[in-house]
Amino acid sequence: MAAAAAAGAEEAAEAAAAAAEGRVRAWAAGQAARGRRVALVTSGGTQVPLEARAVRFLENFSSGRRGAASAERLVRAGYGVCFLHRARSAFPWARALPPPGPALLDALRLTPGPPPGVAADPAALPALLPALRDYRRATEAGALLAIEFTGLGEYLALLRAAARALAPFGTGRAPAGGGERPRGVCVITMKMVPKMLSPLVKEWAPEAFVISFKLETDPLILIDKSRQALEKYRHQVVVANILESRRTSVIIVTKDSQTPLSLSDEEIAQGMEIEEKIVSYLQGQHTAFIEKKV
Amino acid sequence: MAAAAAAGAEEAAEAAAAAAEGRVRAWAAGQAARGRRVALVTSGGTQVPLEARAVRFLENFSSGRRGAASAERLVRAGYGVCFLHRARSAFPWARALPPPGPALLDALRLTPGPPPGVAADPAALPALLPALRDYRRATEAGALLAIEFTGLGEYLALLRAAARALAPFGTGRAPAGGGERPRGVCVITMKMVPKMLSPLVKEWAPEAFVISFKLETDPLILIDKSRQALEKYRHQVVVANILESRRTSVIIVTKDSQTPLSLSDEEIAQGMEIEEKIVSYLQGQHTAFIEKKV
Repeated sequence: MAAAAAAGAEEAAEAAAAAAEGRVRAWAAGQAARGRRVALVTSGGTQVPLEARAVRFLENFSSGRRGAASAERLVRAGYGVCFLHRARSAFPWARALPPPGPALLDALRLTPGPPPGVAADPAALPALLPALRDYRRATEAGALLAIEFTGLGEYLALLRAAARALAPFGTGRAPAGGGERPRGVCVITMKMVPKMLSPLVKEWAPEAFVISFKLETDPLILIDKSRQALEKYRHQVVVANILESRRTSVIIVTKDSQTPLSLSDEEIAQGMEIEEKIVSYLQGQHTAFIEKKV
Repeated sequence: MAAAAAAGAEEAAEAAAAAAEGRVRAWAAGQAARGRRVALVTSGGTQVPLEARAVRFLENFSSGRRGAASAERLVRAGYGVCFLHRARSAFPWARALPPPGPALLDALRLTPGPPPGVAADPAALPALLPALRDYRRATEAGALLAIEFTGLGEYLALLRAAARALAPFGTGRAPAGGGERPRGVCVITMKMVPKMLSPLVKEWAPEAFVISFKLETDPLILIDKSRQALEKYRHQVVVANILESRRTSVIIVTKDSQTPLSLSDEEIAQGMEIEEKIVSYLQGQHTAFIEKKV
């Protein structure tokens, strides 16, 4: 019985991954037709059950804020973004809304009508309006494809499916028929599952520009660990950061460079996010990567 | 340095708990003046860091849905509810809103204005309108006092503070001056931290009607474990439930009774929640408890 149930669950997971692969392929073809580069962003922590029927979980620290912020910035930079995220982690533009408790209830007002309706409180509009406008613009342009996962197994299956579906778009060559810009796929994996980096780089999307993140608490070992990861997995970039300062500074580490990026006090006061600088820098590196290959 | 920081954090936690105690006491006095019984509901899972500067956490399974649903039902039954909940766990009435991702963004529409605004999509109104109406009614009547916590230590400090503040209202005696109904405090602890049940029952709120929850995966040991808890902690009720069926059936266990409550297929189809039956049953038991003491 248990074995049969497990086999059934595995089949269901495979069917879901195959369906996702089809969806991503069709979406990426549409992005290519519009001349857009494509990025795959994975985001949100991992939850591993401690028991078979789990009441307790081992939880990786990640709200998904960085992944959501990066996806927003990539869309603004002209990328089509496939956003592979854990259920209930931060979502692009939705993170501008009040959290789903009293703050959200207080941001909504009953309008008497008739017919009765619900409108946002004027005080909530300065945050809501730009986020909703950007989200609508991205949705109408088809620039965001969101795929949700919950468990680790599901994540790995969907990541493989999405990477495979995007691989043909990451060759750097201009598509047959000409006239279009050389394309390229950028894969940004925020999720700390190192064991999937190897097949991603070697098998699933070998021509993609792959970026991973390294979060440490000890600054002294951060760069060494980042270089070790680059040597081991043979991908292009590690965004290295320290737990305490991750919101305001990172170091972009490649095979032969390390570039610190950080927010000034003034930029922090203006509400700027470090992801703006990260995405802007990586975009330049991605362009150089494509041009070198062509 | 580290010791000083820890001492500072402890002081801050104590100051926060003292402030909460004052808030709860003032609020409870207002509830009593309106002739309302008071319930303290604790809700949401516990997160315990695995490292000093934590990147990983041990997580207890709980979305807080049951606590939020019970708080809604208690307010509807005429209780004033102090809702002690983990940050980002389910919140009364807010759980009727779409989750804070694409579903929430899609439920909101830009209205052109001028001035530009945001209104709920008509398709979202059937869920939104009653939830917002009930939330407004509860807020205007002061029937809900929400207190948020994150870590386990913070939870225990706030629980002690709230229980102590409510204790004087749980004597069952009509207040001096007469004319009012006998009062009573009901404490519903959804959070699975057994070690706090003992001081809660013996010291913090000895005259309160205290209910705990027991979640097991094995139905054979459920009742035994519930009775053991009642004997050990000397509180009044255990709501016993099995992981798989917790949304549709529970057993209310007391010193000398066990009462199964469950939803029929028809009730499930109508969207009824088991918390409606739980709260209705517990309200009767609470009344009997108060009357026996008077």
